[in-house]
Amino acid sequence: MMSRGGTRVVRSVMGQMGPRLFSTATGNGSVTGVMRTNAGLIGSEKAVVTWWIRSSPIGARNASTMTLGEKVQQQDQKEEATGSSGAAAGGQKGKEVVSYWGVQPRKVTKEDGSEWKWQCFRPWETYQADLSIDLKKHHTPTTFLDKFAYWTVKSLRFPTDVFFQRRYGCRAMMLETVAAVPGMVGGMLLHCKSLRRFEPSGGWIKTLLEEAENERMHLMTFMEVSKPRWYERALVFTVQGIFFNAYFLAYLASPKLAHRIVGYLEEEAIHSYTEFLKELDKGTIENVKAPAIAIDYWRLPADSTLRDVVMVVRADEAHHRDVNHFASDIHYQGLELKDSPAPIGYH
Amino acid sequence: MMSRGGTRVVRSVMGQMGPRLFSTATGNGSVTGVMRTNAGLIGSEKAVVTWWIRSSPIGARNASTMTLGEKVQQQDQKEEATGSSGAAAGGQKGKEVVSYWGVQPRKVTKEDGSEWKWQCFRPWETYQADLSIDLKKHHTPTTFLDKFAYWTVKSLRFPTDVFFQRRYGCRAMMLETVAAVPGMVGGMLLHCKSLRRFEPSGGWIKTLLEEAENERMHLMTFMEVSKPRWYERALVFTVQGIFFNAYFLAYLASPKLAHRIVGYLEEEAIHSYTEFLKELDKGTIENVKAPAIAIDYWRLPADSTLRDVVMVVRADEAHHRDVNHFASDIHYQGLELKDSPAPIGYH
Repeated sequence: MMSRGGTRVVRSVMGQMGPRLFSTATGNGSVTGVMRTNAGLIGSEKAVVTWWIRSSPIGARNASTMTLGEKVQQQDQKEEATGSSGAAAGGQKGKEVVSYWGVQPRKVTKEDGSEWKWQCFRPWETYQADLSIDLKKHHTPTTFLDKFAYWTVKSLRFPTDVFFQRRYGCRAMMLETVAAVPGMVGGMLLHCKSLRRFEPSGGWIKTLLEEAENERMHLMTFMEVSKPRWYERALVFTVQGIFFNAYFLAYLASPKLAHRIVGYLEEEAIHSYTEFLKELDKGTIENVKAPAIAIDYWRLPADSTLRDVVMVVRADEAHHRDVNHFASDIHYQGLELKDSPAPIGYH
Repeated sequence: MMSRGGTRVVRSVMGQMGPRLFSTATGNGSVTGVMRTNAGLIGSEKAVVTWWIRSSPIGARNASTMTLGEKVQQQDQKEEATGSSGAAAGGQKGKEVVSYWGVQPRKVTKEDGSEWKWQCFRPWETYQADLSIDLKKHHTPTTFLDKFAYWTVKSLRFPTDVFFQRRYGCRAMMLETVAAVPGMVGGMLLHCKSLRRFEPSGGWIKTLLEEAENERMHLMTFMEVSKPRWYERALVFTVQGIFFNAYFLAYLASPKLAHRIVGYLEEEAIHSYTEFLKELDKGTIENVKAPAIAIDYWRLPADSTLRDVVMVVRADEAHHRDVNHFASDIHYQGLELKDSPAPIGYH
């Protein structure tokens, strides 16, 4: 009991201290750590470390994440960076440009020494989905606005069902391109509002942008399972153009309505993913091996299948459902989102 | 040497493992950690821990971040959450709504036991600015587009100088409301592009959104030093309306130009903050105590002054200068941003 408690102390404090320390490191670096995915227990066991001459705090952080191979390279780049004049840079090739501005992407490796493949998310953005979340929860529409939101979403469902039929892999891929829009629009509008009004956002900008990013990772995942055809690309192009602007205007007009709509969209998404699971269990959709990106993003076991991926994605949607209904409820109480602390990192 | 190396291993791996572990925790939690800001060395020494009955991985994470006081409360909320029906929620007051959706903001405390005051940024987003960055670096405009960007920015400087004269505190506050726009616009457009094209962004969405968030924190900081008057608020309102749309269109038309403009804007910002420092040293602007938010965000010593804040803000601007000139250079090579890994967390 105590020892388990102890483990958790370390993990929590790591959580509080870690990220920035890592992400403030400049220059190429290589860190190796071991992830254990059983029961959410994560340990860290070994790391590649070499010494480097630079002695500033930042340098020290560099040193901690550098491999011998990169040491020489980076010193050269440092010289170029301080030496060269701006004019030179414009026309030069990638590597030189990087060295000219001294802007270095960090190199992260997995425990097996292989490079961290994903630029779109880093190790500290991965997580284990909370599959214990209640999937049945539903906000019964009582006010006119709620009913309007509810029936808007319901009416959108019919054409979608007709278009996709039982092709749930394709459906998931296509609809995630839409699902990633509201969070970005909401976050962007709250960001501008925060600037305009000289007031903090209560963490809601981050919460909504996290949602958008999470939905985009769903897309990156399902792209590995189903490839879009040309007319599907064209459709996404059109739908984004319409939906982005429609949601933008809806959010300007009534954030209360906008968040409620997303809440109901997520309820429908949960339903669709449940249907997806049924098809997988019936065998009408092949339960292929889980894409590598999904295994890394949700910290799934190496032998996970598409079914496991759909399970965690559905859990994500359930969390987004809660956040958006909650956001709408805050507005219903005549409050602004900033008045109620945001559930940052709620998964 | 080795022992220092050892410290770094822990820190780096914490960086890789930490954040998600922390931020995937649901429910109220309280974590206490000790930050040492000398020479960038960060330690974590104690944490409040109590045991909780729930046994899922998520529960386990909760347990690690819960205090006895919150234990009972959360169990109640869990019961309410599973019990109640959606309809009930709409009209209820904040606490019930929270408990109904089970969406709990995490409670974080500082090492002195006081609550973490800032919702707009969390402990793992704080960092120490790299003051060693070269402030003189300048991209000499050679192409027509570069010259256009350069002179656009230069021509914007004149009216700004006339308007603000030597009121650098006010100037900083006002201009940060503008500086936080490009990152958000760029990030949002790359996000939509990534969705439309079914392709990853190479980490650039996050990089640009980080920039926007960082600039917004500059605003939150300077708001503590200078309060906007009504006509200044009106001006910000108007300027944002114009600048947001202008930059939006510029980015659509030519990301190459847009990033170059931001690069030059940041060069001007560095110049302005240098002037700010001169006034502080001359004593024409009082070197007041640093705002609490700045001390927490940049991990500054408790006795820091406005001068220390301007120093770290200027360093931030220099980093944004590099990132944006770099982004423009990537386009100059006929590449897209996604083709060159993004400098995520470059400070």
